[in-house]
Amino acid sequence: MRQYVEIGIGREARRTYRLDDISIVPSRRTRSSQDVDTTWHIDAYTFGIPVVSHPTDALSSPEFVIEMDRQGGLGVINAEGLWGRHTDLDAAIARVAAAAEDEDSLDFTGAKAIATLQELHSAPVDFDLLGERIAEVRASGATVAVRVSPQNAREFAPAVIQAGAELLIIQGTMISAEHVATGGEPLNLKEFIGSLEVPVIAGGVADYTTALHLMRTGAAGVIVGGGTNTNHVALGIEVSLATAIADVSAARRDYLDETGGRYVHILADGEIETSGDVAKAIACGADAVVLGTPLAPAAEAAGKGAFWPAVAAHPRFPRGIVQGSELLLADDEESPSLEKILHGPSTEPYGVQNIVGGLRRAMAKCGYTDLKSFQKVGLAVSH
Amino acid sequence: MRQYVEIGIGREARRTYRLDDISIVPSRRTRSSQDVDTTWHIDAYTFGIPVVSHPTDALSSPEFVIEMDRQGGLGVINAEGLWGRHTDLDAAIARVAAAAEDEDSLDFTGAKAIATLQELHSAPVDFDLLGERIAEVRASGATVAVRVSPQNAREFAPAVIQAGAELLIIQGTMISAEHVATGGEPLNLKEFIGSLEVPVIAGGVADYTTALHLMRTGAAGVIVGGGTNTNHVALGIEVSLATAIADVSAARRDYLDETGGRYVHILADGEIETSGDVAKAIACGADAVVLGTPLAPAAEAAGKGAFWPAVAAHPRFPRGIVQGSELLLADDEESPSLEKILHGPSTEPYGVQNIVGGLRRAMAKCGYTDLKSFQKVGLAVSH
Amino acid sequence: MRQYVEIGIGREARRTYRLDDISIVPSRRTRSSQDVDTTWHIDAYTFGIPVVSHPTDALSSPEFVIEMDRQGGLGVINAEGLWGRHTDLDAAIARVAAAAEDEDSLDFTGAKAIATLQELHSAPVDFDLLGERIAEVRASGATVAVRVSPQNAREFAPAVIQAGAELLIIQGTMISAEHVATGGEPLNLKEFIGSLEVPVIAGGVADYTTALHLMRTGAAGVIVGGGTNTNHVALGIEVSLATAIADVSAARRDYLDETGGRYVHILADGEIETSGDVAKAIACGADAVVLGTPLAPAAEAAGKGAFWPAVAAHPRFPRGIVQGSELLLADDEESPSLEKILHGPSTEPYGVQNIVGGLRRAMAKCGYTDLKSFQKVGLAVSH
Amino acid sequence: MRQYVEIGIGREARRTYRLDDISIVPSRRTRSSQDVDTTWHIDAYTFGIPVVSHPTDALSSPEFVIEMDRQGGLGVINAEGLWGRHTDLDAAIARVAAAAEDEDSLDFTGAKAIATLQELHSAPVDFDLLGERIAEVRASGATVAVRVSPQNAREFAPAVIQAGAELLIIQGTMISAEHVATGGEPLNLKEFIGSLEVPVIAGGVADYTTALHLMRTGAAGVIVGGGTNTNHVALGIEVSLATAIADVSAARRDYLDETGGRYVHILADGEIETSGDVAKAIACGADAVVLGTPLAPAAEAAGKGAFWPAVAAHPRFPRGIVQGSELLLADDEESPSLEKILHGPSTEPYGVQNIVGGLRRAMAKCGYTDLKSFQKVGLAVSH
Repeated sequence: MRQYVEIGIGREARRTYRLDDISIVPSRRTRSSQDVDTTWHIDAYTFGIPVVSHPTDALSSPEFVIEMDRQGGLGVINAEGLWGRHTDLDAAIARVAAAAEDEDSLDFTGAKAIATLQELHSAPVDFDLLGERIAEVRASGATVAVRVSPQNAREFAPAVIQAGAELLIIQGTMISAEHVATGGEPLNLKEFIGSLEVPVIAGGVADYTTALHLMRTGAAGVIVGGGTNTNHVALGIEVSLATAIADVSAARRDYLDETGGRYVHILADGEIETSGDVAKAIACGADAVVLGTPLAPAAEAAGKGAFWPAVAAHPRFPRGIVQGSELLLADDEESPSLEKILHGPSTEPYGVQNIVGGLRRAMAKCGYTDLKSFQKVGLAVSH
Repeated sequence: MRQYVEIGIGREARRTYRLDDISIVPSRRTRSSQDVDTTWHIDAYTFGIPVVSHPTDALSSPEFVIEMDRQGGLGVINAEGLWGRHTDLDAAIARVAAAAEDEDSLDFTGAKAIATLQELHSAPVDFDLLGERIAEVRASGATVAVRVSPQNAREFAPAVIQAGAELLIIQGTMISAEHVATGGEPLNLKEFIGSLEVPVIAGGVADYTTALHLMRTGAAGVIVGGGTNTNHVALGIEVSLATAIADVSAARRDYLDETGGRYVHILADGEIETSGDVAKAIACGADAVVLGTPLAPAAEAAGKGAFWPAVAAHPRFPRGIVQGSELLLADDEESPSLEKILHGPSTEPYGVQNIVGGLRRAMAKCGYTDLKSFQKVGLAVSH
Repeated sequence: MRQYVEIGIGREARRTYRLDDISIVPSRRTRSSQDVDTTWHIDAYTFGIPVVSHPTDALSSPEFVIEMDRQGGLGVINAEGLWGRHTDLDAAIARVAAAAEDEDSLDFTGAKAIATLQELHSAPVDFDLLGERIAEVRASGATVAVRVSPQNAREFAPAVIQAGAELLIIQGTMISAEHVATGGEPLNLKEFIGSLEVPVIAGGVADYTTALHLMRTGAAGVIVGGGTNTNHVALGIEVSLATAIADVSAARRDYLDETGGRYVHILADGEIETSGDVAKAIACGADAVVLGTPLAPAAEAAGKGAFWPAVAAHPRFPRGIVQGSELLLADDEESPSLEKILHGPSTEPYGVQNIVGGLRRAMAKCGYTDLKSFQKVGLAVSH
Repeated sequence: MRQYVEIGIGREARRTYRLDDISIVPSRRTRSSQDVDTTWHIDAYTFGIPVVSHPTDALSSPEFVIEMDRQGGLGVINAEGLWGRHTDLDAAIARVAAAAEDEDSLDFTGAKAIATLQELHSAPVDFDLLGERIAEVRASGATVAVRVSPQNAREFAPAVIQAGAELLIIQGTMISAEHVATGGEPLNLKEFIGSLEVPVIAGGVADYTTALHLMRTGAAGVIVGGGTNTNHVALGIEVSLATAIADVSAARRDYLDETGGRYVHILADGEIETSGDVAKAIACGADAVVLGTPLAPAAEAAGKGAFWPAVAAHPRFPRGIVQGSELLLADDEESPSLEKILHGPSTEPYGVQNIVGGLRRAMAKCGYTDLKSFQKVGLAVSH
């Protein structure tokens, strides 16, 4: 079944597929897009739209998180970012954005902006400051989700949960249910998750086995994908998202059988730039998507159009570029509201605005009215 | 037979092919291109060339439709476009074209031109005005074909038929024989088509099953393809035209057998930019092609070189870009006549002029002299 | 054996390969490139290198043809080009080159240069003038090869042979052993070739069957390939040269068996830009290659760096672009001699100079010392 | 097992894979990158990192070779380069770098810089001068590796070994265990290597058979790959590195069995630009990698940012371009130290700095802690 090719004598490689490689095939009676229901339930929480924001300071100001909630989605706070490190958060973010504007960050390495990020992240975390800010969002009534890294989960989790985090996201580039290290106690996710009072979403993962192990830790959801697009050149690791989502969906089916019915949610993170990508990720088996750059142009986003993934701040081996706002907004273009990006109406034809409207329309044209059944739509791979 | 790949554990996708992926293989005695017959018969109508224009106001001024008829093809009027909405049609179209010139509409989103289109389409349709204009074309003696959307077919069809439409085109991005909606009566195409006195061409479709159902509605022709090239990014739906035409041809064969001989015509719409594409679409099984951008530079076209597909005017989720005339005409180039674009002689080597001459030549080099038998020519897929 | 894919239900296409898709695999003991013998024998003629020039006025001044002979190759005169149409040949060619300089001929259609070519070709052929010029080349002692089109072969061949043509090239984009036309007598190549006193090389062909038929006409050589690279967009016909050469080689093997030993030469025309392409064409089974653009920068070339294939002058449906000299020569670069292009020494690393040196080196590294045995070298197709 | 396709009737080609075609698949428990051991042992020598520099004067000043040693790697001196030809080595290298700056060497052929290289290499080698310089490096305590070509090995080897070379690299574009030439004595590598007192690393090779023969000569290591990326256009020979490394690894396994345990090291040379490429090369079976352009920006590199491979200086058929420093360093960017390039910390996200850090991280995320076992990591090929 799984396709393997022999790349050299005695050495096989599996053939994998990116979202770009596939497309959705309509073959049923069409429906009205008004009849499409995009509700996503995970644990005790219900969201109107299956959209989660990437845990980066480039997006998550308190205002942004609150607005995400208002628009039906889930905004995620990065506990290890700048919220707990700088009292003047706006000024810190503005410094990164300015460094990114200062250079052609796509043509070259964007070293200045990354160096700025690294410097800002070298400040210690003030847990009181972080807690205050989390509590402020919680006070607004918005659902509060906070991301910690696997390495720092033990240190950060108690503080952020106490401050009001309702969902804990444990996310690194690639994680496994158990991390082995010489000296230092490894994080056993099963024990750790069992010790928490909030549901946990953990990732990223890219393969069946790791995903199955992660499901067995008790996580409510797993994140599929590596999040940034420089891992292939920097690490030689490229997550082909269509294949990865389908593989993790297979793990979910087997885990459902194993447990007699525990359903673990799949969140797709990476390669998702347009409404068409959102539709394809769900078609492959995802329950929700994590969006980064598509949300960056929003007027409510902290970076004012600039974007960087969390891992771009790594002190020794940053991955992920810092994009200046000029890459995401035309010169004289006004920042669209988050509402417009998510729900339209739109004046552009590429599905980078009215993202949820595009998803609805794709589902309707294929004859599906809910997310779960849309995971069965026909797929094609272009030559 | 149909090729499937497993993109992930337990999830298959069909392998599909675009026109760009294939080419025609000559393997018989060559013929003279003068001996090639490009006549296309559909219902009671005969056309000298198998060329239909995309139903957009960017092409269809009355003058354009009349000239299409004179050149042997079929010009299509979009009933839901600007003809019935604005008394000064030329001024309305000029506004869109100007907005498209005003910006680099390929590099960015072309938002201004689309916003202008949306605004112009928000004016109500004056059925008297629309009827007058249709009648004017009919009075010229040209065959009159009018396009309506599935959603508005019931409202628009009677008026346009009364005004003189001889062929009704019911076209949406993706349609099915029955459209399901909560509240509101669904359009049952079989009943609807049965109630009309004019032949109907309906689409777009992309798969065997939907096409077969559409053939059973009594349509004289089906349109294969989604028409615009932003559906892949915006909806995740990409019609690979070579595969889609071949699949719908298979549905036609089965329907011929089922009915004991009712032949439904296949019109290919999308990916068709040059005479080579026209030849390939017919080689895959199409009886005729729908051309958009290739006809836009014509001196007779309403947009004076600017082009947009009908769906670019969608109020909430536009698809299809508005191309300014500078993309289709060189700076100091004079607009070629529709005759030159279709029949030459040409002074360019890419098959964007003398399109029918290129088709004739391709058929002749492959040893075929009529369109129907050319559907059997050998094909190749490049590595 | 032959690979077929089903592009749609019930419709198959053969999988084909371009020269760009393949590469040569060394796997034997290396040799010295000095030991490589590139001699090519066809009929009674022997050439030091397996290189024939494309029959275009952009290359073939009398000086160029004589120099090709001196360098070991074969320069081909286009009987239907400008040699017989204009007494001041240099001025005519200079007009085309100037029109090509005048515009960015790659970015747009190069319409002016093509229109100039068309105008110049509308002058009638003066057979005396053509004959004189051919005789002048013959008088130099160089081998004289002249190209005629299949359509005009009967009219032109006697005159050019009388003037001194020793090899007749009958070349159209795609030809077959018999051309069928309503009214007018078809050219039966077998009878025609049988009636001539000089050996004939005929083409282009792209498939096994047509090639076998062409071999049976008595041709000494067949040309594989369509010559220009705009046939795919203009006609939908793309010759994948690696596959086509291999197929025609199979026809040669079968014809050898059928005739008990008549060996027909294969000349590859198209996709050949560098010494690596030359090596790959021969590795696929070609005995010689036809070069166009690679020879255009030569100081001896008529176009002084500008280039167009013969078919660019077609009066109604030109194919092949006119390239201005600035595309082939750097601003301040002096035109290299034909000797330098063919035999080096070179100061550039891409195999566009010292083309034969590159071929020798490729053969030597693979352990082969003659062209015929190099046709068996291992090949690879990159993923 | 090995995949073959029929490119034409009766002609097969093997399907091969580049490093770019593959990626690494994590599927085990993650590890800490601090726990990763990158030690590489070959013969009596131990290196902290599996990194060898390309034998070019663009890199190897004495300072560079000494610093490579200090950073744990192996710097290689090109005995046939400029070290023995010019007393003022810095001035000679500066002339090449200046010629490369003087033109856009990527857009065009870089003929001036190559002509300069050719001229500088036409000076005779002063073996005393070469010996002195080699001895100077040896005196520093750094491991000394010197490269000679197969053609000149007999002439150069004694001198360089006497001067202090501890490892001899015999490297040409493509070599075989025996080179056949008419007149002149062929180099029989087995005899030659047997006659030397230092271990030999020889290459490049690209296939199983040649590699097996090379292993039987007694070489301590074989270099896989052709080194430069213009061989495909110039010679038609393209080494698909993933396939080549895997094939040569298979030869090593068979040779291990044949000899009852002699392990020959595999060094991968070519296509390696980033830390991800390094990880992939080792994942395919390499023990170490040869780096060229990635090391060129180092402050210690002789070319001060300019780069050319050794073969770019070939007198008649140069391959490999001369890159000016502006291609590898941003305008106002300071040259990073070799330490930073190899070990970080880095401020860029593409894995062109902190190359070894990236390798460690890739291995750790895949759950491996030593190079040898990482050769078994799972691989994927993207559609």
